[in-house]
Amino acid sequence: MNILQIGLGPLGLKIANFIAERPGLTTSAAVDKNPNLFGKDLGELAGGKPSGVAVASSISAAVVKNKPDVAVLTTVSDMASITPQIEEILAHGIPIVSTCEELSFPWEAASELAMRIDAAAKAAGVAVLGTGINPGFLMDALPTFLTAVCQDVKTVTVKRYQNAQFRRIPFQKKIGAGLALEQFEHKKQDGSLRHVGLTQSMQLIARRMGWKLDKTEDIISPVVAKNEIVTDAMTIPAGYATGVRQIGNGYVNGVVKIKLEFQASIGEPESYDEVIIDGTPRIQSKIAGGVNGDVATCAITLNAIPQVLRSTPGLKTMVDVAPVSFYS
Amino acid sequence: MNILQIGLGPLGLKIANFIAERPGLTTSAAVDKNPNLFGKDLGELAGGKPSGVAVASSISAAVVKNKPDVAVLTTVSDMASITPQIEEILAHGIPIVSTCEELSFPWEAASELAMRIDAAAKAAGVAVLGTGINPGFLMDALPTFLTAVCQDVKTVTVKRYQNAQFRRIPFQKKIGAGLALEQFEHKKQDGSLRHVGLTQSMQLIARRMGWKLDKTEDIISPVVAKNEIVTDAMTIPAGYATGVRQIGNGYVNGVVKIKLEFQASIGEPESYDEVIIDGTPRIQSKIAGGVNGDVATCAITLNAIPQVLRSTPGLKTMVDVAPVSFYS
Repeated sequence: MNILQIGLGPLGLKIANFIAERPGLTTSAAVDKNPNLFGKDLGELAGGKPSGVAVASSISAAVVKNKPDVAVLTTVSDMASITPQIEEILAHGIPIVSTCEELSFPWEAASELAMRIDAAAKAAGVAVLGTGINPGFLMDALPTFLTAVCQDVKTVTVKRYQNAQFRRIPFQKKIGAGLALEQFEHKKQDGSLRHVGLTQSMQLIARRMGWKLDKTEDIISPVVAKNEIVTDAMTIPAGYATGVRQIGNGYVNGVVKIKLEFQASIGEPESYDEVIIDGTPRIQSKIAGGVNGDVATCAITLNAIPQVLRSTPGLKTMVDVAPVSFYS
Repeated sequence: MNILQIGLGPLGLKIANFIAERPGLTTSAAVDKNPNLFGKDLGELAGGKPSGVAVASSISAAVVKNKPDVAVLTTVSDMASITPQIEEILAHGIPIVSTCEELSFPWEAASELAMRIDAAAKAAGVAVLGTGINPGFLMDALPTFLTAVCQDVKTVTVKRYQNAQFRRIPFQKKIGAGLALEQFEHKKQDGSLRHVGLTQSMQLIARRMGWKLDKTEDIISPVVAKNEIVTDAMTIPAGYATGVRQIGNGYVNGVVKIKLEFQASIGEPESYDEVIIDGTPRIQSKIAGGVNGDVATCAITLNAIPQVLRSTPGLKTMVDVAPVSFYS
């Protein structure tokens, strides 16, 4: 399986390493818009052995020798920016798996762009899928699948709690750990603390349950240190932020039917991913320790490829293609 | 949605009740081979209000007025018996959802019959799906889906433990509770204690992981009372069976890569359904309290209908159609 990797940020490079680990998968071409990367060896950029794949400056240049079987697109998070990139790839007739968060379920928030991509994918005769661990799995596809055993569903609640104490320092900074509350508020206002995808996850669940959401909320607040916390990387005084709490509420007829809780902080007592379905029967499913987002996002992107290749053409979500799984 | 219900045993009648509860679903026709049921009202047979649907003696008679959108087939557990029934339904061009255990993954143990059904379904232009809670979900489709987040999978273990203390007496009898060990052995030999499906579940997982199973085992043993157990329904002396333990082992190159543990007994300390994936990352996912098989089997059968109707034609498994979910 020959893969065209587009976007060589930290995620794209990690995916390149994951591909190198897996028999049967090969990165046959790589593209990034950063001129400093043009011509450099992908394997070396990713911190590994030389791969013989030189970074190309455009998709046309990358596919000139061999047409890849699939493109892995890890560039941007929003539909407005990803759509022309997808259209360019589809012009070459290449199916796409992308980690673009808003692509995971664009049918409500960006329905016109979604229809444009869907039409282009159908014209090209291939499928396009937005995936990832969150959005894409833990807070949408997995809880949706768990409702398969239910004769009735009243509410869906998903909780993703992570202790960031032993995570990478960039992750700790990303969740606002160590910030004074006014700094936290400032970063919240400029959007840099925001995890993209809660709204998409709620809309995917609602679509499948047959619920019409009349309102969604996406609320960010700090987790605040009660006492001073000292880690290898930082000291957090009492009253400062240890991390972020982000809540998604999906309302149907004025009542919260979908509740997504994402909380990542230093000193969080327990890491876990939990789905609670208030229904018949009631389902409470918990992944102890939680799922590491970095590893899982790369893995699910690669694992999705066979189902994208088997899919009917068009823009798909994780509940439109057959259940994704590991394969060897 | 008009449903043709074929097979009016306890499961078929319970499904009829579940259909009656759900807006948008209607049992438009019902068939059973038992002459005592011919002409009787389905709703009354199911213990509810009259439905206006009289039990027909044949599929041809049942569909003469209106062609149903889908057939729900709850008759037998084995491929040899279900195949001609499926072929008869397909001759009318009707898609099928069945609870037949061996149909959940027939591609190894009954590959010729599977190919026959697949060809007939394609000729009819509709899909045929074997589903259920176990096999069909808890021990195969769900663990397979959970591997989506893994870069590597070494082993898959699934544990289904149930305390039968508060279950229906027929269920307690079915699992051998209260039997002397020689009686248990006798019932084990005559096959009446056996839960059908562990082998199919292992084969489904292996197929998706890309593993070639060189051997599967399906081992039944009694759970034995250490002390006397007194319930509303029975007294179990020490040394007698409180229930059944059934283990599925799937070997790849002589090593167990798939382990399925099903244990149902009176006095079982904890009821739960657990999936443990030894991989990168390691995943341990547990449904506390477990999933009630009676409710869930009926629910998942109805919930599968939309994905069967959307599917490409042919014989499908629960990991070939898009993820099944509740809908309203």
